[in-house]
Amino acid sequence: MNNMNDIRQIICNAIFSRVSYKSLREIAQDKGLAKLGDALVNFIYSLAKSLILGKLDAWKVSDAVLSQALENASLLKLLPKRSDKHSRGDAVEALLAYAWIMGIFDIKNAVMLLKDEMKRDDFSNKSLEKIAAVRAFKKLLEEIKPKIETFLIMRKVKKEL
Amino acid sequence: MNNMNDIRQIICNAIFSRVSYKSLREIAQDKGLAKLGDALVNFIYSLAKSLILGKLDAWKVSDAVLSQALENASLLKLLPKRSDKHSRGDAVEALLAYAWIMGIFDIKNAVMLLKDEMKRDDFSNKSLEKIAAVRAFKKLLEEIKPKIETFLIMRKVKKEL
Repeated sequence: MNNMNDIRQIICNAIFSRVSYKSLREIAQDKGLAKLGDALVNFIYSLAKSLILGKLDAWKVSDAVLSQALENASLLKLLPKRSDKHSRGDAVEALLAYAWIMGIFDIKNAVMLLKDEMKRDDFSNKSLEKIAAVRAFKKLLEEIKPKIETFLIMRKVKKEL
Repeated sequence: MNNMNDIRQIICNAIFSRVSYKSLREIAQDKGLAKLGDALVNFIYSLAKSLILGKLDAWKVSDAVLSQALENASLLKLLPKRSDKHSRGDAVEALLAYAWIMGIFDIKNAVMLLKDEMKRDDFSNKSLEKIAAVRAFKKLLEEIKPKIETFLIMRKVKKEL
């Protein structure tokens, strides 16, 4: 197990031994996951942006961007009706935090996926960057959603055996 | 090479092939490193805080905290005289980003070091949390400073061979 998996394993044992998520919906609405996910989202986005620009850079990904990505990935159904932008952003952060901690994706995979969805010109102004970031996070959500679902089913089956 | 080292290697090849830092001072004053470092610092601090509390949580580490940690670690000399809080915070972020990208520390090591310097009671109010965070980042800086120095010397020697 490498160093990065190791910290996830430690987090998993220290925190998730007492919590067991049963559905995507439950994960998406977890505020603790969203808090850690906020830091994770900014970190992977900043790494991807740096790689594309060829120089170190960063950006705090807004709720508006994450909220739109959630909608475009047809995942609004995970939240109660009339959810606000903040809850929608939190949902993306929570899903990504869960998937990362559970080893469903690695930071490297996520960074490379975001990187492939954006290009240098997207960073020429903030409006273009927002559009590109929505597209990139939509793609990441589409990648991890079925993987989380499979993971939850396998956990359930394992428990029932 | 594990997945996490891998992304560092990619960043290193894509960006640092054209830049070569010669001193701690040069690293501490690099604004690009500081930008990525901001996301990194919040991520490792949030992981450490989550582990201590036994529940997922996060905190945006302020310039005031990082600035004080830099001073307490006797590293103000890396900046011009009369540097402000923001530049001092940036210096800590830049040093940590450099050390992480170069493989001088792993996220796991940093999280465990921060965790060992703080305790549950430190999070009972914001003032206590700030004091604990200053202590933890001071310790982290003390750990990585000599390692970066050794790394820079070894790079120089390698180039001269």
